Amino acid sequence: MPKGSFEGLLVPAVTPFTADLTPDAGRFVAFCRWLLDEGANGLAVFGTTGEANSIPLRQREELLAALIDASIPADLLMPGIGACALEDAARLAGLAVEAGCGGVLALPPFYYKNVSDDGLFAYYSELIARVGDPALKIYLYHIPPQSMMPLSLDLVGRLIDAYPATLVGLKDSGGDWSYTESLLREFPGFDVFPGSETFLLQGLRAGTSGCISATANINAAAIRRLVDTWRAGDADAQQARLTEIRQTVQAFPMIPAAKAIIAHFHHAPEWRRVRPPLTALDENRTRELLANLARLGYSMAPPEAAPVS
Amino acid sequence: MPKGSFEGLLVPAVTPFTADLTPDAGRFVAFCRWLLDEGANGLAVFGTTGEANSIPLRQREELLAALIDASIPADLLMPGIGACALEDAARLAGLAVEAGCGGVLALPPFYYKNVSDDGLFAYYSELIARVGDPALKIYLYHIPPQSMMPLSLDLVGRLIDAYPATLVGLKDSGGDWSYTESLLREFPGFDVFPGSETFLLQGLRAGTSGCISATANINAAAIRRLVDTWRAGDADAQQARLTEIRQTVQAFPMIPAAKAIIAHFHHAPEWRRVRPPLTALDENRTRELLANLARLGYSMAPPEAAPVS
Repeated sequence: MPKGSFEGLLVPAVTPFTADLTPDAGRFVAFCRWLLDEGANGLAVFGTTGEANSIPLRQREELLAALIDASIPADLLMPGIGACALEDAARLAGLAVEAGCGGVLALPPFYYKNVSDDGLFAYYSELIARVGDPALKIYLYHIPPQSMMPLSLDLVGRLIDAYPATLVGLKDSGGDWSYTESLLREFPGFDVFPGSETFLLQGLRAGTSGCISATANINAAAIRRLVDTWRAGDADAQQARLTEIRQTVQAFPMIPAAKAIIAHFHHAPEWRRVRPPLTALDENRTRELLANLARLGYSMAPPEAAPVS
Repeated sequence: MPKGSFEGLLVPAVTPFTADLTPDAGRFVAFCRWLLDEGANGLAVFGTTGEANSIPLRQREELLAALIDASIPADLLMPGIGACALEDAARLAGLAVEAGCGGVLALPPFYYKNVSDDGLFAYYSELIARVGDPALKIYLYHIPPQSMMPLSLDLVGRLIDAYPATLVGLKDSGGDWSYTESLLREFPGFDVFPGSETFLLQGLRAGTSGCISATANINAAAIRRLVDTWRAGDADAQQARLTEIRQTVQAFPMIPAAKAIIAHFHHAPEWRRVRPPLTALDENRTRELLANLARLGYSMAPPEAAPVS
């Protein structure tokens, strides 16, 4: 029984851009719909993989509105509200609550490093106060490789104690299983989503709620299958296969690689675009990546072949 | 002969906040005027010390407008344009150029880590293209302890080569003198400002353009004196004294400490406020800091005693 409303596979959807680097709302909506058709249990839009911090606030607001207007079910959305300024995070969280989103994924403010737990506690407290709506459900976003801002177990515990109805879970992109285990042990009932399907089976067996993984943009159906059948006899074989594909993709820069794969299988070169400071995968590297995946027998059903919801 | 228009002591002014944490424009203007009266050659507002990344874009725009409206000379301003999203940085840079600011201090986009020089080059190129004004003068902001994004010598060189009239200097807050020396050696004529007065005398002797230092918020007059008299016989003694005060302050968290000192000597407890994730210095630590400074004979002329420009 999850504490929040999410369980299973959440896809941190990549964001398509037009030639001038503004988000392509139409393509984004179509892609999100396709991810749900592929089996995503939810969409963690506007996260690290979605390049959200490289997108101005107003454009993120418009993208969220486009999803809602297109009847993507709001309760399946867990938008990221990453920002360095409290008001910006509160604004995005407020809009998410208003739209009926199932929750929000809340980065710590990530400019200053080595800040105190007291400072981070004050940030989240003030955020919750400013949103001022009991419908707000927060998933903390622990991603030290990018934020350089680990969320200590002590901080997580203090926040859960102070806001038990709001603090429902955490995305753990630390890649350190001992941290994940500590969360499960210290905070029973708190929803923990590892940030990679590499930990999917191990996690489900230990009590995590699923995963939120960048590679799910290009392997959603297979990951979802393991979510649904992790007690089956072939679970370890399924996991091995997921891990193999994950490792093949993450031998390249993850976001450009995922976009290159989508561009290829969806026959849409526009998908290759990323915003600076990221750079698109060049043609040679793209060929290498696709060849490595082909050797594993990987392919993706193009969206035309997917059932339309 | 500096390449840009700045030389000497630039103060990265701290930002005062009202009780709801919005910037206090009136108090900020008065403080900036006082810093100029104390001897600042320029003001690097909206930097790390100014907590700018914790302040929403619109509020930074309003603060800049308040300075201009109050007749703070725009050519003495080097506003920070730190942002993760290109459009936000371009917006702030455009407003600075329009206002006649002497230059802008340009952080790299700081969310993603370990990005390539190609990605950072693309970011700055696109920024310059979007501002589209030859009056734009960029000072790169190298501050790995916060941005976790060192600017490689190769990147700096590529940018200077591509935009010789725009790329005029760099603020070096890395604290690594060998990097500073390399900049001076590789890029003659490029304006280098160490991020601490600890390197002021050593820097001026080696060819740097001055310094941009957080402690200048509370020790501007003495730092300016060394800028003006660094060839005098007492220069080393002056430097030793500056370093002593710097070290005393930086034994505490720098921004809260500087604000606590200002609050004390300006008789304005409001100055103690910082935005999360920073936390104000508590009373005991403040007493300790002030006692340590008093033992050094440090004091600050309250603004009432300063000549009003």
